[in-house]
Amino acid sequence: MDFSHAPKTQEYLARLTAFINEHIAPIADDVYEFMHTHNAHGDWRNWRLHPQIEQLKLLARQEGLANLFLPDAEYGQGLTTLEYAPLAEEMGRYLFAPEIFNCNAPDTGNMEVLYHFGTDEQKTTWLMPLLKGEIRSVFGMTEPDVASSDATNMQARIDFDGDDIVINGTKWWSTGLGHPNAKVIIFMGLSNPENDRHAQHSMVIVPLDSQGLTIKRMLTAYGDYDAPYGHGEMVLDNVRVPKENLIMGPGKGFAIAQGRLGPGRIHHCMRSIGMAEEALALGIKRALSRTAFGKPLTELGGNKERIAMARMKIEQARLLTLQAAWKIDHLGVKNAMTDISAIKVVVPQMLQEIIDMSVQLHGGGGMCHDFPLARFMAGARSLRLADGPDEVHMAMVSRLELKKYK
Amino acid sequence: MDFSHAPKTQEYLARLTAFINEHIAPIADDVYEFMHTHNAHGDWRNWRLHPQIEQLKLLARQEGLANLFLPDAEYGQGLTTLEYAPLAEEMGRYLFAPEIFNCNAPDTGNMEVLYHFGTDEQKTTWLMPLLKGEIRSVFGMTEPDVASSDATNMQARIDFDGDDIVINGTKWWSTGLGHPNAKVIIFMGLSNPENDRHAQHSMVIVPLDSQGLTIKRMLTAYGDYDAPYGHGEMVLDNVRVPKENLIMGPGKGFAIAQGRLGPGRIHHCMRSIGMAEEALALGIKRALSRTAFGKPLTELGGNKERIAMARMKIEQARLLTLQAAWKIDHLGVKNAMTDISAIKVVVPQMLQEIIDMSVQLHGGGGMCHDFPLARFMAGARSLRLADGPDEVHMAMVSRLELKKYK
Amino acid sequence: MDFSHAPKTQEYLARLTAFINEHIAPIADDVYEFMHTHNAHGDWRNWRLHPQIEQLKLLARQEGLANLFLPDAEYGQGLTTLEYAPLAEEMGRYLFAPEIFNCNAPDTGNMEVLYHFGTDEQKTTWLMPLLKGEIRSVFGMTEPDVASSDATNMQARIDFDGDDIVINGTKWWSTGLGHPNAKVIIFMGLSNPENDRHAQHSMVIVPLDSQGLTIKRMLTAYGDYDAPYGHGEMVLDNVRVPKENLIMGPGKGFAIAQGRLGPGRIHHCMRSIGMAEEALALGIKRALSRTAFGKPLTELGGNKERIAMARMKIEQARLLTLQAAWKIDHLGVKNAMTDISAIKVVVPQMLQEIIDMSVQLHGGGGMCHDFPLARFMAGARSLRLADGPDEVHMAMVSRLELKKYK
Amino acid sequence: MDFSHAPKTQEYLARLTAFINEHIAPIADDVYEFMHTHNAHGDWRNWRLHPQIEQLKLLARQEGLANLFLPDAEYGQGLTTLEYAPLAEEMGRYLFAPEIFNCNAPDTGNMEVLYHFGTDEQKTTWLMPLLKGEIRSVFGMTEPDVASSDATNMQARIDFDGDDIVINGTKWWSTGLGHPNAKVIIFMGLSNPENDRHAQHSMVIVPLDSQGLTIKRMLTAYGDYDAPYGHGEMVLDNVRVPKENLIMGPGKGFAIAQGRLGPGRIHHCMRSIGMAEEALALGIKRALSRTAFGKPLTELGGNKERIAMARMKIEQARLLTLQAAWKIDHLGVKNAMTDISAIKVVVPQMLQEIIDMSVQLHGGGGMCHDFPLARFMAGARSLRLADGPDEVHMAMVSRLELKKYK
Repeated sequence: MDFSHAPKTQEYLARLTAFINEHIAPIADDVYEFMHTHNAHGDWRNWRLHPQIEQLKLLARQEGLANLFLPDAEYGQGLTTLEYAPLAEEMGRYLFAPEIFNCNAPDTGNMEVLYHFGTDEQKTTWLMPLLKGEIRSVFGMTEPDVASSDATNMQARIDFDGDDIVINGTKWWSTGLGHPNAKVIIFMGLSNPENDRHAQHSMVIVPLDSQGLTIKRMLTAYGDYDAPYGHGEMVLDNVRVPKENLIMGPGKGFAIAQGRLGPGRIHHCMRSIGMAEEALALGIKRALSRTAFGKPLTELGGNKERIAMARMKIEQARLLTLQAAWKIDHLGVKNAMTDISAIKVVVPQMLQEIIDMSVQLHGGGGMCHDFPLARFMAGARSLRLADGPDEVHMAMVSRLELKKYK
Repeated sequence: MDFSHAPKTQEYLARLTAFINEHIAPIADDVYEFMHTHNAHGDWRNWRLHPQIEQLKLLARQEGLANLFLPDAEYGQGLTTLEYAPLAEEMGRYLFAPEIFNCNAPDTGNMEVLYHFGTDEQKTTWLMPLLKGEIRSVFGMTEPDVASSDATNMQARIDFDGDDIVINGTKWWSTGLGHPNAKVIIFMGLSNPENDRHAQHSMVIVPLDSQGLTIKRMLTAYGDYDAPYGHGEMVLDNVRVPKENLIMGPGKGFAIAQGRLGPGRIHHCMRSIGMAEEALALGIKRALSRTAFGKPLTELGGNKERIAMARMKIEQARLLTLQAAWKIDHLGVKNAMTDISAIKVVVPQMLQEIIDMSVQLHGGGGMCHDFPLARFMAGARSLRLADGPDEVHMAMVSRLELKKYK
Repeated sequence: MDFSHAPKTQEYLARLTAFINEHIAPIADDVYEFMHTHNAHGDWRNWRLHPQIEQLKLLARQEGLANLFLPDAEYGQGLTTLEYAPLAEEMGRYLFAPEIFNCNAPDTGNMEVLYHFGTDEQKTTWLMPLLKGEIRSVFGMTEPDVASSDATNMQARIDFDGDDIVINGTKWWSTGLGHPNAKVIIFMGLSNPENDRHAQHSMVIVPLDSQGLTIKRMLTAYGDYDAPYGHGEMVLDNVRVPKENLIMGPGKGFAIAQGRLGPGRIHHCMRSIGMAEEALALGIKRALSRTAFGKPLTELGGNKERIAMARMKIEQARLLTLQAAWKIDHLGVKNAMTDISAIKVVVPQMLQEIIDMSVQLHGGGGMCHDFPLARFMAGARSLRLADGPDEVHMAMVSRLELKKYK
Repeated sequence: MDFSHAPKTQEYLARLTAFINEHIAPIADDVYEFMHTHNAHGDWRNWRLHPQIEQLKLLARQEGLANLFLPDAEYGQGLTTLEYAPLAEEMGRYLFAPEIFNCNAPDTGNMEVLYHFGTDEQKTTWLMPLLKGEIRSVFGMTEPDVASSDATNMQARIDFDGDDIVINGTKWWSTGLGHPNAKVIIFMGLSNPENDRHAQHSMVIVPLDSQGLTIKRMLTAYGDYDAPYGHGEMVLDNVRVPKENLIMGPGKGFAIAQGRLGPGRIHHCMRSIGMAEEALALGIKRALSRTAFGKPLTELGGNKERIAMARMKIEQARLLTLQAAWKIDHLGVKNAMTDISAIKVVVPQMLQEIIDMSVQLHGGGGMCHDFPLARFMAGARSLRLADGPDEVHMAMVSRLELKKYK
């Protein structure tokens, strides 16, 4: 056992942190203010990126800090899940940082799908521009009319019609739908109802400008549009794409999703841990700088104990996530299912608790847009539902635990 | 001991509930949608009331359901704090209901201040139009630059200059500042620094159109402007009002605040309990109507136990609040200090927990504006800070507890 | 609504408290030491009462403070469930106080069974000596071989054989079995398997010296025998009692149990609230008297907030219990089922938490027999299982909650 | 980073587990029953070891499984703190296992003190017989009359008088005092009040049969004497030992304690994690084997979610502890202070929670001596106070956290 980062990770961590300190931290307040002023409304057609983002994306690419998430040495930097994890954590401290490093959801997951399961043509057409950060993508899975925690509830239809695939259905909470650069959707739907439960769905590549596709609206999570990334609702009415847009094969949707989710959850969780660190840091700084009843807030009531508990929870959640990353790398996703479910429960709950504490240390300011905490909370709360609610993952953990005794 | 409501309360409860069921519940979705579409932005100058609100206000007044909060039989309906409490609960189920009954914060507290401590002229000029619902008011206490949990930190100045009072300072989280009908502020500031700690501050009536008064912005709480009511930031730069606008006398600010807060907290807490009931009801309805893994959500995992815990917490919090109301009526605010602090801690925490559970039962929908839960959460979170953060109230409760042993 | 105690309750409360302060509090340390020294072992045949108990029982009887639990004016003092509740709380502060007032479990429940459902002969033979405190009784329901949380699992057999009833089976956690004065068991068993689920069991009076009845052992709860009261295991091997010992009729076991449990749970919960008050008082006194890092423990870390939380939880739990008592009196046990289940969950959990906090404030001393806290904890922990585990009661509360929507 | 155990650890783990499965698990019920029957009383003079223990100690020694805790290759097996940690976990599943491997508290800590700081003579006289398991030892630090959480409160006196050291004072919670083989105490007391705060105390070796030393009594923790190990109270009245019994030098008590505590806490915590695993395993087995309302208990209410939460908490606590062990090995105790404090808070709380859950899954059986859970709970509860209460350790964690911002 060894709890130190590999030299390669340390080297990337040093460069990444330097980049963040030099280029991202100094503009954070300005970007948040920009987001609030320009994008905090439902009219996604007018959402736009802060003017410095594209330029920083370019710079990150030039410095070899783009696509760190992708294990491939040519397209990415050849980092394992575990080697990338601490880098994702650092990116998580700023809501807009992952995009700069071309490591933001849902693009990372979508790029992985195309990388692992895409045809050469799919790679050329969609993966390459995504890797270059020229376009952004969307993931379409959750549906408004059914409890999507049970993915077999899915109703959207994917039908094969000669050389075409015909798609019908409504999806919401489709992440990235509002981004000005969004061009393509990885879409999951019911294609083979005659098959076994987990072989009934397929994944298809759907260009965002397809005829019959309507973006209905963007959705707020706790009042936050997460603009310019955005979660949206879209309707597909007889959308036709060529059959070459099918990924892997008919009925392979679940198999692909399974492979996609493992590393994706590590990324989500590590970013959340970075966010928790940032929330805690903001809370402590605020508490040290404000005085009540003759003392800094840190000296009052149970604040110190809460800070200690926060530290202990972050450390534990991080170790659990790093161990899950290590298991994915060494034992494969299938042998890390409990771990991947466990972090999905533990980390967002921890994050939510620490943000709440930090808000309380901030007083009224903590709730408003003068600090990023309210947006952090929207993200934390979403994560407890996105990609399977806590309850589904607890069920998975208990199933494997009980199996030991059967 | 008697846990049944007095006949008078029961009678009002029946009429109020009938009014809500007939006039408010049916338009709730429409009003929430209106709020989201027309008011969900920071440009408060354009905020407006849903078109039916004024008409329902009139109707409520005609039916003798206005100003129920005011113990006075002439101006209000002569209900005690305890008799009013269950009515406040019912109003709390809908965010816009309290205004219809002219029972919304901060107007209730401000009206009480004017009622108890105002001169005849102050009553004629400000209390009467407020009671009639012709104008709305603002309460200015919290300041951005200091930890306002310690009210003695307050920096805004109130200076007496001949026949004038001169006011300087910045306030934020001033509730009601964005309302289109807002006309007047009850403003608290430092007037007599030479006095003892709790006799240094005064309260002054400040018209909203005073020269030198600038509304800087409205503030979001968890992304929610709480429009058209709104929490805002305002700057007072050498604002002058006649000395007749002083309430009660110089240095009386704390004494007034003390009297104001008791019943006000009962109102806040009872409305919160109504909100918790509504959140729980929404959660159960949703959980019963959605199916996953072959069962309604209520049958899955620990959902039933969570619903049971919610019921038990609501009941306990309600009883604690009703008992506090009873103590205010029978023993006076001063002898109910622990109780008033206790409910201020217990109720918003309970509310936050139950809303969070209901969101989880809703899935993604729970976070967006298709349901009022996200706005409920913004309200719940605010309440844990407004009017003294949890920590200040826990300190009060423990102080009185320890006193028993000294 | 009225949160003040009725004059009758106040008068009894004053007299009971005076009795406790004069006669019980001063000997408490001595009694606890006696219990530890003489009874803290499994050899129940040698258990005995502290020498002053019988004399105090007599005194309490003379002062009209015996059998306060029984609503009957002749046999008891004619107090309603609600009027008795605060008296039970005061008794709960000392482990041995309920016996002095002839108000201890399981005798109160057993006396209620005989009072409500017994024949005249059963009353003369068993109820009268119990009311006079001459003998003690046992309740036999829980069985070692089945999950007794589901009472229909019960396996002990009650067979009718001519003029006799024949009883076979093993029971454990039979409260009161180790008491030197224990003479009789109220025994529940399966008698009519042919009937509907809730009409299959009967209750029978079984003298403790019956042939074929063997006390196997006393059981510890967290190391505590609760001597000289004691929870024990007993085997009944073809025990024969006359058919006159059947209570109410064949298959009436559940109906009787139902009636028995309502007020019994109020008693348990109110005593637990008294115990929580005592645990909190002990904790605060200890914390005020010990100094670390230059301050009394109350001033360190989050101790004050924990004390405040304890106060708030006790108040809420008490109100919930008093409301349940009021409902039993005014609406009947059947219409108070949720409330009776709710307090059974809320109160013991609250008690366990407050004792744990008090132990922590005591340091090492809190765990050992220098203070009654470890015995309190054994009692609190038992209560979360006795008379239905938390989970069964949460299921009841959620069932009734969900019913509202069906 | 590497989450796999080193080959050396794996090899020891395999051998240790085989030993436990072959020799310890099969006799566990018998040993617990023996402990309950023979030792569950305060008369420690009669306490004795289960007859097989000495023989198993011998066997463990022969197989090279003794003294695994000691990093020394000659006296122990040369395992680092991290290499030993998973072995301590396995021992923790059975209360009597650590003694068999000569790895039980407080002997491990005492042996470490003698190993690191003892003179050759002290090693020959005391360390060697301890390593051979011929004698047992006691650690004397906590005092009944002061809050010992603040070690500078200590009042016991160590005075230098010519060739003698004179010792006066009372200690309690002295672990191991009741063991039939206990022969020697490592005693800490105030020797140099003229020095700085952390150089006022010394550690002295005191034979248990010294004149003037009286064992007053053994103490229960939640009713459990932890016999035959035992926590006791002892009085030292002018006890004289030769000055050669001083360890390291006058005023070195704190320095020694500091060094002693680091690895000791790893041991405690890893054993606790093993205990938590065992408690969870017992709970699941019981829940799977008992049926209520037609289903195994695992299928009822929130039981599965609680089992999942238990799994997630254990994993996190284990990783935190292993990381702390790794830091001790690689960075030294001083640079692992936060980690050592953090595990001291996290692990016993987690353990307490999981035992409580397991008790609940067991029903009444869980509380009594038919299962080891009640004794586990006594141990868990003790650990939250032993060696510094939670609060002291949270203060340490927050101090280092806040330091980052100063």
